[in-house]
Amino acid sequence: MKFNIALLAGDGIGPEVINEAVKVSDAIAKKFNHEITWTPALTGACAIDAVGVPYPDETHEICMKADAVLFGAIGHPKYDNDPSAPVRPEQGLLLMRKKLGLFANVRPTFTFPSLIDNSPLKRERIEGTDLVFLRELTGGIYFGEKGRKDGGETAFDNCVYTRAEVQRLAKKGFELAMTRSKKLCCVDKANVLETSRLWRETVQAMEKDYPEVTVSYEFVDAVAMRLVQWPNSYDVLITENLFGDILTDEASVISGSMGLMPSASVGEHTSLYEPIHGSYPQATGLNIANPLATVLSAAMMFEDAFGLKDEAEAIRAVVNKSLEQGIVTEDLAPKGTKAYKTSEVGDWLVANI
Amino acid sequence: MKFNIALLAGDGIGPEVINEAVKVSDAIAKKFNHEITWTPALTGACAIDAVGVPYPDETHEICMKADAVLFGAIGHPKYDNDPSAPVRPEQGLLLMRKKLGLFANVRPTFTFPSLIDNSPLKRERIEGTDLVFLRELTGGIYFGEKGRKDGGETAFDNCVYTRAEVQRLAKKGFELAMTRSKKLCCVDKANVLETSRLWRETVQAMEKDYPEVTVSYEFVDAVAMRLVQWPNSYDVLITENLFGDILTDEASVISGSMGLMPSASVGEHTSLYEPIHGSYPQATGLNIANPLATVLSAAMMFEDAFGLKDEAEAIRAVVNKSLEQGIVTEDLAPKGTKAYKTSEVGDWLVANI
Ligand SMILES: CC(C)[C@H](C(=O)O)[C@@H](O)C(=O)O
Ligand SMILES: CC(C)[C@H](C(=O)O)[C@@H](O)C(=O)O
Repeated sequence: MKFNIALLAGDGIGPEVINEAVKVSDAIAKKFNHEITWTPALTGACAIDAVGVPYPDETHEICMKADAVLFGAIGHPKYDNDPSAPVRPEQGLLLMRKKLGLFANVRPTFTFPSLIDNSPLKRERIEGTDLVFLRELTGGIYFGEKGRKDGGETAFDNCVYTRAEVQRLAKKGFELAMTRSKKLCCVDKANVLETSRLWRETVQAMEKDYPEVTVSYEFVDAVAMRLVQWPNSYDVLITENLFGDILTDEASVISGSMGLMPSASVGEHTSLYEPIHGSYPQATGLNIANPLATVLSAAMMFEDAFGLKDEAEAIRAVVNKSLEQGIVTEDLAPKGTKAYKTSEVGDWLVANI
Repeated sequence: MKFNIALLAGDGIGPEVINEAVKVSDAIAKKFNHEITWTPALTGACAIDAVGVPYPDETHEICMKADAVLFGAIGHPKYDNDPSAPVRPEQGLLLMRKKLGLFANVRPTFTFPSLIDNSPLKRERIEGTDLVFLRELTGGIYFGEKGRKDGGETAFDNCVYTRAEVQRLAKKGFELAMTRSKKLCCVDKANVLETSRLWRETVQAMEKDYPEVTVSYEFVDAVAMRLVQWPNSYDVLITENLFGDILTDEASVISGSMGLMPSASVGEHTSLYEPIHGSYPQATGLNIANPLATVLSAAMMFEDAFGLKDEAEAIRAVVNKSLEQGIVTEDLAPKGTKAYKTSEVGDWLVANI
């Protein structure tokens, strides 16, 4: 098969981890007889530097034409202390999500047996954890009307959801639950928010279409607790944009393997695959960042965007092998053992595919 | 001294844990020569059952006239699966907060050396944790305009903050930081929300009035992670209502002693003291609920509302003694050891004051 993949390396460690994912993807393509064309495009702070906007139209065109987008990370410290600067990298991220119609962010959290002791949580609390969040990504308070009144003294952000927005996200949740343990948890704050009540009634009305799925409804504050207490009690969770932002990040640290967690954003047009770890500015250019989350995002891309399960499994297998053999970057290397460089991990993976 | 305390036992285990806090408070009053008048009043589901509303005017009058409010918990399962029922216990809670002007919820999270191994987190992650959240409690998306449009197909919740609301909460945060390690963290989502940008600029402008306080600004998603990774890196945190709801609950489980965490809500009128654990309906009437969070809330009341530090310390000392001697309810009793009843723990505390 032939694929055209848009390559958005972005900022910080983005280019370094993307580079290794490209190497691994190319090796897999060679082994399984596929042909990948990579089309690089600018996004984030580097796009602002180059052309003045964080998600240029040209980048959007490239993404729309591609079979998938592989994304690194965006963000630069020079914008961090000035969140109201007129042009910021995050705006590119939000614009990209909106223009690509990426309404569902798929964020798995799972444990690697060989890394379980890295978790801040006790082993018995996380063993067997294998959950997936579906976070709504193009609605809610992120995209509602916002602004100032009273000469700047009052600020507001409006959170808005339509039934159709909830339905299309929930549909993906039900479908995913059907392929897993048939347990779905709808996370909301229906005891306070009207949007949450719309979420809950919409999901309730869909239950009859998926009689095999057991649905539970939990308040966001309760989930924030139980994720730390009994993460392995969850399977598929669906939630709105802001709750998803907070809870998926919380969930990402419980496995102790944040540097390994991939994600996908899917919706109306091209799907996007990215590591969840962000641009990690302190490590930029040092060749020390862990490339595995990006490599595993490429595996998700092969499986979900191209329907190539064997290829995805081959990537996951070689990643597991590297972990077992301790071919890991410094974030995972036990004290006193050798840490490999970003590119060395990539080289090892390629050599062992 | 003479005190008049409004006693709002509420629902579920509320009356049971409140009963023990009253016993302990009376014993302390006797020992230190104070006189307490308790004035019970209805709130929550039991108020709906009795008079049709969850926060009756009469209850409000009693609270306004009191020197402090001691509160149990509200909530009843019969309302849980119907969050859009016209009258619900939570409405009473929100109305009470608003009418009493309780704009700051003070939620400490600390560890008890004797209970540290109950935590889902590893010992080395939580040792030394001693943080306090100040959650804004009468503004934001909880109290903004909410409703439906398009014949019910679109729902909205408006999040609104004024500079004055941020200032009065932040002022309490700076003042609290001055009495502790002079570290203040402002938690927001200023990279996305206009209200968060107002929070950040308001707090930034106040920094010059507290030159000794070191202020950091962190995004809510990052805090959700770091609370699990390094809770002992925080001291005083200030945040808006909804973020505070989620993060304080998340923080409450890290110590492994949720059944022990007290809280205070303070503002324009009478201050309110309550355990954070909620109404725990499954345990209602079984005399098994842990009364210590309520007892420690009474300690906060003696110290903060009445300025009686010795009395507060005496309560904390006897609670610590009970923990060390294993006079604990079933949630804290190690497997195979005797668990004490709610009232037995209270009796023991009274006998040892
Ligand atoms: C950078 C920021 C706007 C973004 C978000 O809040 O969605 C990030 O936290 C994420 O989760 O991808
Ligand atoms: C019951 C609910 C309305 C309430 C809140 O969200 O404030 C509760 O979760 C709390 O934190 O006291």
